[in-house]
Order: sequence, then structure tokens, then C-alpha cells
Amino acid sequence: MSKTPLPLTRASVVEALSLIRFSIHKTPVLTSKTLSALATREGGPKINLLFKCENLQKIGAFKIRGATHALARLSDDELRRGVVTHSSGNHAQALALAAREASAVRGFPIPAYIVMPHISTPSKIAATKGYGAEVIFSGSTADERETVTRAVQERTGAVLVPPYDHPHIILGQGTVALEFIDQAKEMWFPLDAIVAPCGGGGMLSGVAVVCQGTGIAVYGAEPREGADDAWWGLKNRLRVESVKSLTIADGLRTPVGVNNWAVISDLDMVKGVYTVSEGDIMRAMKLVIERMKILIEPSSAVPVAVVLYNEEFWSDMVECWREKGGRGELNIGIVVSGGNTTIEKIIELFGSSEK
Amino acid sequence: MSKTPLPLTRASVVEALSLIRFSIHKTPVLTSKTLSALATREGGPKINLLFKCENLQKIGAFKIRGATHALARLSDDELRRGVVTHSSGNHAQALALAAREASAVRGFPIPAYIVMPHISTPSKIAATKGYGAEVIFSGSTADERETVTRAVQERTGAVLVPPYDHPHIILGQGTVALEFIDQAKEMWFPLDAIVAPCGGGGMLSGVAVVCQGTGIAVYGAEPREGADDAWWGLKNRLRVESVKSLTIADGLRTPVGVNNWAVISDLDMVKGVYTVSEGDIMRAMKLVIERMKILIEPSSAVPVAVVLYNEEFWSDMVECWREKGGRGELNIGIVVSGGNTTIEKIIELFGSSEK
Repeated sequence: MSKTPLPLTRASVVEALSLIRFSIHKTPVLTSKTLSALATREGGPKINLLFKCENLQKIGAFKIRGATHALARLSDDELRRGVVTHSSGNHAQALALAAREASAVRGFPIPAYIVMPHISTPSKIAATKGYGAEVIFSGSTADERETVTRAVQERTGAVLVPPYDHPHIILGQGTVALEFIDQAKEMWFPLDAIVAPCGGGGMLSGVAVVCQGTGIAVYGAEPREGADDAWWGLKNRLRVESVKSLTIADGLRTPVGVNNWAVISDLDMVKGVYTVSEGDIMRAMKLVIERMKILIEPSSAVPVAVVLYNEEFWSDMVECWREKGGRGELNIGIVVSGGNTTIEKIIELFGSSEK
Repeated sequence: MSKTPLPLTRASVVEALSLIRFSIHKTPVLTSKTLSALATREGGPKINLLFKCENLQKIGAFKIRGATHALARLSDDELRRGVVTHSSGNHAQALALAAREASAVRGFPIPAYIVMPHISTPSKIAATKGYGAEVIFSGSTADERETVTRAVQERTGAVLVPPYDHPHIILGQGTVALEFIDQAKEMWFPLDAIVAPCGGGGMLSGVAVVCQGTGIAVYGAEPREGADDAWWGLKNRLRVESVKSLTIADGLRTPVGVNNWAVISDLDMVKGVYTVSEGDIMRAMKLVIERMKILIEPSSAVPVAVVLYNEEFWSDMVECWREKGGRGELNIGIVVSGGNTTIEKIIELFGSSEK
């Protein structure tokens, strides 16, 4: 993508939002007395939880923000040749839809080539094609996918739009925090902290860029089972380059990208990353679906599980609250990253434990 | 309840909203391109569907509106003696919470007595107790429940707050339409019609009162299997007095009340009632959960199924559109009445068909 990307500053995110705001939903922010009460424990402040519902975003996830912004930064000449990515997840549909919507704005067709492993679920392939993209199949290893992607680039001249590791993607995802901070203020619950899931780190780093210097603390949330690469990396001051995990939070089975790591490993930007067990992710997912009446994918339950069940997170919150004088309440924002799951998948996840 | 209730007019609903607005959520209105496209067919207008999400309301259903309004109309003396109802559904929790919140406003305790059949699901009993109500058990026939309710009234002097058959309940539920009409206008999709589920008819009649004279057509939606009493009643110009049904839309297993029937049977108020099969209710429920990412109970899927699958409704829409000149689009509002279901229930409903 673009060789002279914008700097990673709050001002760049404001600019990004001005470019994409008519193409995305300003998703609602919900509260939940039940979950807030569960998050509040003895010896600490009353917690008010706020949920930024990107599961209600176009394509059912925040990824449309980054993809739309990345395309807005490309020239007509670049877009005529098309865009390409390899993804079997939310980024695939995001890029497909962003290309279709950018076509309408620019007034010429913008081909979107999506490389997907041939073992991808048929519904995801159908959804991606449904947005008008051309789906190209590959093997499922990273090498096989990248080889096919390069071949598409060479054949078509299409621009590669990566899922998270690019400043324009980071800035696009960061727009979610601009909205969230404003909406929370309007609701008289100004945010003290934001907790976001961390896969490749596109959203977490974008949120951190927006919050820097505002006094709003930013935290990451990861599955403990094999996808705790950011947590491990922070402990060892080293970016982990590959992840092998079967966590149910399938959106987070990804190492943090290079651009993302530069932000996330900076303690001024992200105050900490916490991990949670598979069981806690399931408990949190069930609570959100049943009590808040919204459908979320397992990845979105990860920050909820951190806030409800991670002891270390709770101690850090209490400490942060004591430093502020130990008075008042804490307003914690959670980015609900997406809702792309199905009833079939829910039955598969919860079917045995519920009977 | 009150002997001199307010008249069933739009002005009374406006007054009701001014009394309850700080006690309820102004729930969001969502749109869905996917469902709108499915509702649009050959030979008719483009349909834009708007969804008023009362599943995101307090207690997970619109019922809190009517209960809160009914209590706001009672005197301190009446409220000191308490309120009573028999319900195993959303009205039980609505009255329990409304009493607790009214206690805080009035500054004295307001006992809430909820008569529930002893076979009620433990989670519903626990939820009702959780809001501070006293749960009193009865047999499950209408007679047994009413006998116990009368005994509570005699013992305590509590005021009976019925679930739907009272003007103050109707006016309270009608507030949902005031918000919906305004929100749709702000979104540049002014409503042409509203479709609401019909059980006892509290909400449908309230919506009809608000829409009278506005040019917005109001339609009811019922399960075909045994709970089609409003549909049958309109055909035969006779209120059906009892319903025996095992429809999955358990919130609608109820005959229309007397006050409600006076509104619903008036063709100037409600233009028609349509019925849908159990299979169509399930299809619609799955679509809303998976595509819109919100959790709804089966009763809320009934109006969605009418809009998507009822042929007669579609013909009537096309006719209505032709009468208006056959140009432009139709904006149809659906009241999503509640979201009180569980993952366990979803597995029970969809488990076998999904495998």
C-alpha cells in the first residue's frame, strides 16, 4: 500500500473519520447494570461498563473502518487495478464491501480479489462473493496464501490491503475510539479506560493512538491458550512472529503486526495486556448474549472476560483508582469487535455444556 | 387500578412518555440491508425495514413502559399498599423493577407481589425475586392464578396491575411508537407502516393510538398455530376470550383484552392482522439473530416473519403503495418486542434442525 502513510497521531485518526464517516455506521454504545454489577467487587470502585457495539457495524465487525480508510487513501489509478488481500475472516468481507462502496463514490469499478483457503466455511465464501469480490482459493498455510496473493498482484497490479499491519488500517480502526469517547461523554460516563481485544493489533493500536494524552488508559485482551503473543511479547520485550492456537476466539489467532507492535509495546500507549481462559471466554460470551441481548463472536467476549474474571486486571484497576484518590466510580469501555457467528456455531460451542 | 383512566389518545401517550422517560431506555432503531432486500419482491416498492429494539430495553422487553406508567398514575397511598399481578413472563419482571424504581422516586418502599405458577422456570422466578419482588406461587390454570391473586389483594390491599388490559398500560406501551416515529424521521426513513406482535394487544393498541391520523398504517402479527385470536376475531367481528396454544412465540399465547380489542377491532386504528407459521417464525428469528446480531425472543420474530413471508401482507403493501401513486420506497417499522430467551432455549429450538 501507500509508501508515504500518515503519521500515527490522533489528528490522523480525526482525518480518517472525516473520510469514512458516511460509509460506516456510528454504532450504538450500550450499558448493562447486570454486567457492571458483576465487574464491581469488594474493596474497589463501582464499575460502570460501556460497550461500543461494532457487532452492529456494517459486515458485523469493526474491520470495515480500516478497509474503507485504506481505500480512501488510494488514487484512482491504483483503485482501477483493484485491491487484494488474503483473509478468511472479517477483513475479507470488509475489503469486499469497501471496494464496492468506493466504486459507487469514485464512479468506476474497483475489483476486489480475496485469497481464501479452500477449506474456508462456505457461508464466509458466499458472503464475500455476495459483496461482489472475486474469491481465489489457496492452500491454508501462510506460505501458500502469500504465494497465491503475490500471483494475483503480479497478474492484476492490484494493491495489497493487509488486515492490520499498516498505518492506514490502524488509523481507520482507531476511529472507533473517537466515537466511543464522545458517546460516553454524552451519556455522562466519561471513559477512564478502554479494553480492546488484541489479535493482529490493528484496533488496539488505533485505540491507543487516539487515547494517548487523554488520561484514558488502554488495555489489550487476549486468549490465554496459545494466542497470548502480545502478553508474552510485552513480558519479554520481543515481538512474537507466529501464533499457533485453536482458541475459540478465532479472530485473535494472529501475531501482532510490526506497525502495531511499535504502538502496543510502548507503555505510554498501552498500559497492559491481560489473558483469559477458554472457559472464561465462553462464560462472558453467554452473559453478553443472554443479558445484553446482542450477538457477539467469541473474540469479542475476550475483553469482557478480562474485566469480569482477570484478577490482575482488577488489582490494576483498584490501584489506578487509589492513585486518583480512591473516590468515585470507574467507567470502563469495552470494544465489542464483532458479531459474526451463527446459531449453528453457538450450538457447537454450548451444546454439550448446556445439556 | 385507577377508576378514571386517561382517554386513549395520542396526547395521553405524550403525557405518559413525559412521566416515564427518565425511567426507561430510549432504545436504538436499527436498519438491515439484508433483511430489507429479502422483504423487497418483484412488482412492488423497495422496502426499507426499521427495527425498534425493545429487546435492548430494561428487563429485555417493552413491558417496562406500561408497568412504569401504571405506577406513575397511582397515589402514594395506593403504592404504599403495594402492587400485584399474575404473570410468568416479561410483565412479572417489569412490574417488579417498576415498583423498585418507583420506590426510589417516591421515597418509601412499594411492595410488589407477583403470582407465578409453581411450574415456572427457575431463572424467571430468580430474576423476578432479583428485582426485589415477593413471588407467590399458584397452580397454573387461569382460575387458580386469579384466586391466589385475589387472596393477595385481600390480605395486603395491593392494587392489581394487569399485563395489558388497562388504558394506562396501553398508553405506556404506546410510548414506543412516539420514539420510533421520531427516530425514523431523524434517520430520513419516515415510517409508512408499523407492524407489531399481538398477544394481549397492549402494545399493538398503544401503537395504533399514536399512529391514528398520522397516515402511518398499523398492522398486527400473530402465530398461526392456535394463537391467531385477533385474526379470527377480526374476520368474525368477535373478541376471542381464550387461547390454547403451544406456539414457540410464548409471549403471544394470550387472547386480546377488552380495552385492547376496542382499539384493535377498529379498522381506522389497525388496518389488519396477519398470521405466520411456526417454521416461518423460526426462520425469521434465525435471520434476525445471525444477520442483525441481536438476540430476540420468538414472539419478536412474528412481525418479521409477516413482513418477509406473508403473501397477503405483501399484496396489501403493494396495493397501499399503488394507491399512493406507485412511486418511491416504503419504510416499514417493526417493533422488536423483547429478547428474553437463553442459549439453552436456542439450542432446544434449533438444535435438531441445525445438525
